[in-house]
Amino acid sequence: MNERIDDLGVKNLKIIQNKDWFCFGIDAVLLANYAKKIKKNSYVLDLGTGTGIIPILLCGKTQLKKIVGIEIQKQVCDMAKRSIAYNKLEERFEIICDDILNIEKYYPKQTFDVVVTNPPYKKQGTGMTNMSENKKISRHEITANIEDFIKTAKDMLKDKGELYMVHHPERLVDIFSSMRKYKVEPKEIRFVCSKEGEIPKLVLIKGIKNASPFLKIIPNLYIYQKNGEYTQEIKDMYEEGK
Amino acid sequence: MNERIDDLGVKNLKIIQNKDWFCFGIDAVLLANYAKKIKKNSYVLDLGTGTGIIPILLCGKTQLKKIVGIEIQKQVCDMAKRSIAYNKLEERFEIICDDILNIEKYYPKQTFDVVVTNPPYKKQGTGMTNMSENKKISRHEITANIEDFIKTAKDMLKDKGELYMVHHPERLVDIFSSMRKYKVEPKEIRFVCSKEGEIPKLVLIKGIKNASPFLKIIPNLYIYQKNGEYTQEIKDMYEEGK
Repeated sequence: MNERIDDLGVKNLKIIQNKDWFCFGIDAVLLANYAKKIKKNSYVLDLGTGTGIIPILLCGKTQLKKIVGIEIQKQVCDMAKRSIAYNKLEERFEIICDDILNIEKYYPKQTFDVVVTNPPYKKQGTGMTNMSENKKISRHEITANIEDFIKTAKDMLKDKGELYMVHHPERLVDIFSSMRKYKVEPKEIRFVCSKEGEIPKLVLIKGIKNASPFLKIIPNLYIYQKNGEYTQEIKDMYEEGK
Repeated sequence: MNERIDDLGVKNLKIIQNKDWFCFGIDAVLLANYAKKIKKNSYVLDLGTGTGIIPILLCGKTQLKKIVGIEIQKQVCDMAKRSIAYNKLEERFEIICDDILNIEKYYPKQTFDVVVTNPPYKKQGTGMTNMSENKKISRHEITANIEDFIKTAKDMLKDKGELYMVHHPERLVDIFSSMRKYKVEPKEIRFVCSKEGEIPKLVLIKGIKNASPFLKIIPNLYIYQKNGEYTQEIKDMYEEGK
């Protein structure tokens, strides 16, 4: 099976993953921490939830009412369902196995206070090696592209609802252009660098539906100190609730 | 008159400014340094050139063939003309006193290899106090807005020509959206912070006309060290050619 159960370091939550497919990385942890100011009793949607790592972390880190994760890969959804049962999160985390573009079959527009998403980073056809079909779908824009993710977020968010996204900085122009087009205004970004003085590897983005333009740039987040240890900020993320 | 002549620290070049109006700041110095890889014999256009600070610096720092500066404020153009004469730059720096939107009256489209611009940062009506009319035009989008600057840059650039801009980070979404719209693809940005760990105050942007999307983010530029002294990078900019 190649499956394993990993401890998430928060409220004894666990996740089931398959080591041959896409396993969650620091991206998901960073996004869950970036989004953790989600208000009590919020309705949250995770677009392309994969094994459910972000919903599970957010169930641990926030007092959200309910989070819905939608994921197109059946085998991956199956793992997410088993993680929900394992963690007894049935009342707070619902998994839907479908294309994100079909979310309206399940919930009406403007249902959610918050949308989170860690979409595939790469454009279809760029740098695709002979990886498994599952890894391809998780990493490349095969079934939906960045515009699909943002348009869907806009449709499902309430007025002034919040979108939290993690992505590669090289795609920032695509992201900003789509967000502006669909009226989910980028209000805040934060770059994530491996170490000080290095080029950012990731960017965290917060948008607000129908907000007025004014972008705030938060000082960089660094993963490692100069000596190779995690920075205190990263240690705090992984050790919260321990 | 309230005019003064300032030394620019590069090849004995000087600039005439009026202390009651807009005087050049570090923004212009940063932009000139960012753009200084301009190739030998390039034709360069500076949109909203003011007193001509960027063309004068670029004449000192590069081997450009000719730079044309266009500026709407007559009194400011007059100072730029006198700076050109003072520095004997008549053959390399031409000043046009007109609205940037009229540049096509003077040069045909696709004439320039490079466009540089330090446009007004603020939207019209935001934070406008009782400053002089000259300062207002230099700082606020009164006679032209960011979209006008980018559209004009696109019209005047050759295919694959380069746009270098300095602006406020809060406007990055407006800038990226306009650049994408007018096919001057943002290829590189660099944030400028006062000190490490602080929110960026400025952003340097390089776009290329008709280039494919892929944004590179250069590590931050810091103005000051922790002890309050200029960083070596800034010292080098001011002391080049001394």
